[in-house]
Amino acid sequence: MKIAVLGGDGFVGWPTSLHLSAQGHDVHIIDNLSRRWIDTELGVQSLTPMDSIQERTRIWHQETGRRIHFHLIDLARDYEVLKAWLAEERPDAIIHFAEQRAAPYSMKSDRHKNYTVNNNVNASHNLLNAMVEVGLDSHLIHLGTMGVYGYSTVGAAIPEGYLPVGIETMAGDTVQQDILYPANPGSIYHMTKCLDQLVFQFYAKNDGVRITDLHQGIVWGTHTDQTRLHDQLVNRFDYDGDYGTVLNRFLIQAAIGYPLTVHGTGGQTRAFIHIQDSVRCIELALKNPPGRGDKVKIFNQMTETHRVRDLAELVARMTGGTVAYLPNPRKEAAENDLVVKNEQFLALGLDPTTLEQGLLSEVVDVAKKFAYRVDRSRIPAVSAWTKDIAPTLERDPEGKRLKSVG
Amino acid sequence: MKIAVLGGDGFVGWPTSLHLSAQGHDVHIIDNLSRRWIDTELGVQSLTPMDSIQERTRIWHQETGRRIHFHLIDLARDYEVLKAWLAEERPDAIIHFAEQRAAPYSMKSDRHKNYTVNNNVNASHNLLNAMVEVGLDSHLIHLGTMGVYGYSTVGAAIPEGYLPVGIETMAGDTVQQDILYPANPGSIYHMTKCLDQLVFQFYAKNDGVRITDLHQGIVWGTHTDQTRLHDQLVNRFDYDGDYGTVLNRFLIQAAIGYPLTVHGTGGQTRAFIHIQDSVRCIELALKNPPGRGDKVKIFNQMTETHRVRDLAELVARMTGGTVAYLPNPRKEAAENDLVVKNEQFLALGLDPTTLEQGLLSEVVDVAKKFAYRVDRSRIPAVSAWTKDIAPTLERDPEGKRLKSVG
Repeated sequence: MKIAVLGGDGFVGWPTSLHLSAQGHDVHIIDNLSRRWIDTELGVQSLTPMDSIQERTRIWHQETGRRIHFHLIDLARDYEVLKAWLAEERPDAIIHFAEQRAAPYSMKSDRHKNYTVNNNVNASHNLLNAMVEVGLDSHLIHLGTMGVYGYSTVGAAIPEGYLPVGIETMAGDTVQQDILYPANPGSIYHMTKCLDQLVFQFYAKNDGVRITDLHQGIVWGTHTDQTRLHDQLVNRFDYDGDYGTVLNRFLIQAAIGYPLTVHGTGGQTRAFIHIQDSVRCIELALKNPPGRGDKVKIFNQMTETHRVRDLAELVARMTGGTVAYLPNPRKEAAENDLVVKNEQFLALGLDPTTLEQGLLSEVVDVAKKFAYRVDRSRIPAVSAWTKDIAPTLERDPEGKRLKSVG
Repeated sequence: MKIAVLGGDGFVGWPTSLHLSAQGHDVHIIDNLSRRWIDTELGVQSLTPMDSIQERTRIWHQETGRRIHFHLIDLARDYEVLKAWLAEERPDAIIHFAEQRAAPYSMKSDRHKNYTVNNNVNASHNLLNAMVEVGLDSHLIHLGTMGVYGYSTVGAAIPEGYLPVGIETMAGDTVQQDILYPANPGSIYHMTKCLDQLVFQFYAKNDGVRITDLHQGIVWGTHTDQTRLHDQLVNRFDYDGDYGTVLNRFLIQAAIGYPLTVHGTGGQTRAFIHIQDSVRCIELALKNPPGRGDKVKIFNQMTETHRVRDLAELVARMTGGTVAYLPNPRKEAAENDLVVKNEQFLALGLDPTTLEQGLLSEVVDVAKKFAYRVDRSRIPAVSAWTKDIAPTLERDPEGKRLKSVG
């Protein structure tokens, strides 16, 4: 298959591109390299030394003989360029990772809120609009987030996208209907993924576009089978307060003797998936497209749930680290339960990597190996959800008065 | 109260501005005049001769001694200008009409789809973002649409925004919850109003912004008490295939002896409201704001429902016109029922103008009076919902081979 990977230079996009290329697909990465620009803006960098996309693809060819093509296109801004590219190349499938993906970054300032909304909504809408305009019947696979559901439940498990509900009719009886799970996003970033859902729903209904939406949990880990092939194929690893995700942050904090930073009570329960499984899920989704005219096919792309404080204590026990409970920059429930259905990927053959299996090797292979590259001042999470929360944050959990990100 | 009316130069915005100014409020219109630019783009104009906003406000002052201020700001593009204006003026209430509001225009081409999404989403989001950034506790009233609900029902009446549903828990019992009515938009335009709803929900939850969303039916009529005061205060009246709405189009078609154009079977049931009631509803919403921290308050702003073919036949009987059944440019159900709850505005004292009372005077006072200004070639509705539908449309219902809009 000819496959376009939009955002193929990113944390999930890059290993996905390698995985699909290794399987013999003709992979085209489209990316505006915005994630690298944001590194520059924030003064942060991947823990792992990451080469340019041009260099990465050169090494991939050198190691495997396979080509991955790279095209610098900004989906959100360059509609006409995107449309011309799709009309010319007519990919069989399009995998869409090309959105700003950090909740804290999306809440950092009014400028960051606007950027996230503008970039994410326009990227998704431009893509669908162009697909319809050039008459393309590609299967579109989008990376969504578990965060579209929110975390407050009424005691029901979170279904894969569609919730069966009972509605009382005027005649007084109750009819059952499957509805898109009521959106309850916790940040501007998560909100944009909820907006995406409605855009997808509309284009599936009006134009018959075949769409799969993957509601992914928090990804942890770094390596996949392909990124291990050569040092210069390594995946990125974010540990800073905006882009670093909770488990990877615990790993690096443990590796450098920094307190494991839990925000609030740590009673937040979250869904997780290892990067290797994430890549495998995309392959499975690719092999199981919806039909033309079907509603959007939604999978929950996660393999286990954990309470944040339990994870912190697990990593602390494994490594001898300490846990620090800090004020929460987010406006969210202090404690929540989370039960998530994920039968669809399991039925298709997904065999999950669990935390128990993978965590220790991650600490040794990645966190300790690259610990010398950590900038401790970039670890605190300082993007506040509201103006009331901002002054309450702890910007210096180590008490070292390191200059932190502003 | 100091009230900002965003989009105050438009069809509902202008009579709202006059109505609120007449009640003694300090009214500031913010508008980018995009509707006038679109007239130019499409080569259409209001049936009623409409002066510039500067001239309109001058006449208003001359007739009543009251000032309405006008500020040329593009909400979607000029975030910093908007923010500075809000910080300086700090209005008590903000009424937000500033969106592209025609479904057919939003489906006209890929460019029009992108424009509608970009303009509407950014306008609403910029506004909320700026309100939070400058710490403004204004009551925000937004003009939504009945179209967010879609028209397919399961036999339940459409509630005012929130639908009570039963959800089965893991323990096997059913819990009741009020959810935002599942969105089912029928065009890109309607979709943007569904996106707005999620943006509002987020800002109400995260930042405590006080928001009222008015899901309005199809507005008919032209005059309000204030627009009648002087010829140059007249409201706009659109009859073209993109911006003209169904009932007003029937009126002008009848007035000039053009067939009354019904698309499809005419079995579509729609909700209606007279412009005078629309303006009155906004006043009522203004007097009944939600509290800080409340969820978005949603009203259905409509007073009656009618099937399109019944309306056509009613107007035909009243005027001796004929009805033409044409292919439908829209992708929609041929026939639908529609039962809508609107108790909230009735409880607050709304006394509806019904079609029976107002229709004949509208034909005589407006349609016949200005019939000489009609460009017959602009009447056909030629914006198709899909590429398959486009070639099926009837572009010349009169058989006159008039050059129509392309």
